[in-house]
Amino acid sequence: MEEYIEPLEELIDQFRRLSGIGRKTAVRLAFSVVNYTDEQAEEFASAVLRAKKEIGTCPVCQNLSVAGQKCPVCSDPGRDRSTICVVEDSRTVMSMERVREYKGVYHVLHGVLSPSNGVTPDMLRIGELLSRLDDGTVKEVIIATNPTVDGETTAMYISRLLRDRNVKVSRLAYGIPVGGDLEYADEITLFRALEGRTEMMS
Amino acid sequence: MEEYIEPLEELIDQFRRLSGIGRKTAVRLAFSVVNYTDEQAEEFASAVLRAKKEIGTCPVCQNLSVAGQKCPVCSDPGRDRSTICVVEDSRTVMSMERVREYKGVYHVLHGVLSPSNGVTPDMLRIGELLSRLDDGTVKEVIIATNPTVDGETTAMYISRLLRDRNVKVSRLAYGIPVGGDLEYADEITLFRALEGRTEMMS
Repeated sequence: MEEYIEPLEELIDQFRRLSGIGRKTAVRLAFSVVNYTDEQAEEFASAVLRAKKEIGTCPVCQNLSVAGQKCPVCSDPGRDRSTICVVEDSRTVMSMERVREYKGVYHVLHGVLSPSNGVTPDMLRIGELLSRLDDGTVKEVIIATNPTVDGETTAMYISRLLRDRNVKVSRLAYGIPVGGDLEYADEITLFRALEGRTEMMS
Repeated sequence: MEEYIEPLEELIDQFRRLSGIGRKTAVRLAFSVVNYTDEQAEEFASAVLRAKKEIGTCPVCQNLSVAGQKCPVCSDPGRDRSTICVVEDSRTVMSMERVREYKGVYHVLHGVLSPSNGVTPDMLRIGELLSRLDDGTVKEVIIATNPTVDGETTAMYISRLLRDRNVKVSRLAYGIPVGGDLEYADEITLFRALEGRTEMMS
């Protein structure tokens, strides 16, 4: 439904195209821009164009990087190149980095296999992962796709591809989130937590 | 905290400047843009610039309009020009229009008086409202500022300015929202609902 004058509706439409933005939020965001000074609007528009132009992917791990350059992790000589953590997207890289415990490198798939959404293996950066294993440096591949149906399918698919390669393949543990309340945990998480129970040292 | 590569952080920053957007949402929005095609990014950036350039305010009611033109309501010959509904911003005009019962015109203040935020009467479009009353066409001014402290202050201020003008000044009714639950209504709303109670016809 067109309600506002045309240039405003167009801006609202543009905001709605962004991930997870509904009509009401898009209207609020568009009104923010309407209240911008000319200079602020220019800055916003040029940040959009610049991001598109200057952001590329790392030739090694496929993480987002300044176009034509290796990403910060792959550029760091202190990282352990024998362990690769395979993630769905660059946001997961950031979550892992915040833990500060992981010293290995990453591989970003840019998605997960999803038969229902028509995402097939050739649409992910799986070939690039396989070629990283060729020189024998890599000893372990940790698959850290999300605990969803598609994430599981992808983890399974990759672990099968790696079966004949001389690498250990692991998966992040499932369980109760720290600080969570058992009362609110869903059955599948509880089941996985039970299944993955570890012996207590006393 | 800078986490991502610079052009991405800049875009995240730009999204954070929009009303009501926190870091996590800004990251999600920026990632949407990173996944855009060049053409989509161009369209987005130009919608921002176009909105800023082509959106002005209606010379009559101060509602948002295509720069240099009257707004759709003021251009409509079918509207009743004897009634003006005074609102804080153009979004409220849209909410009122959705009701489809109001046939009068509007006046958009572009804010509310707020001593705490340093908003004084000269920063609102109050002078423009007063001059609309000069030719005697207007019979009623309905003040529809928000039911907040600042909204009330503004309503009171305007009603005093209009005291000596030959117009009826009214305010939207307070009460329990339709479909609301009395159990969750705050005391002030309940008090106002009680105060404004109407006789039931039987």
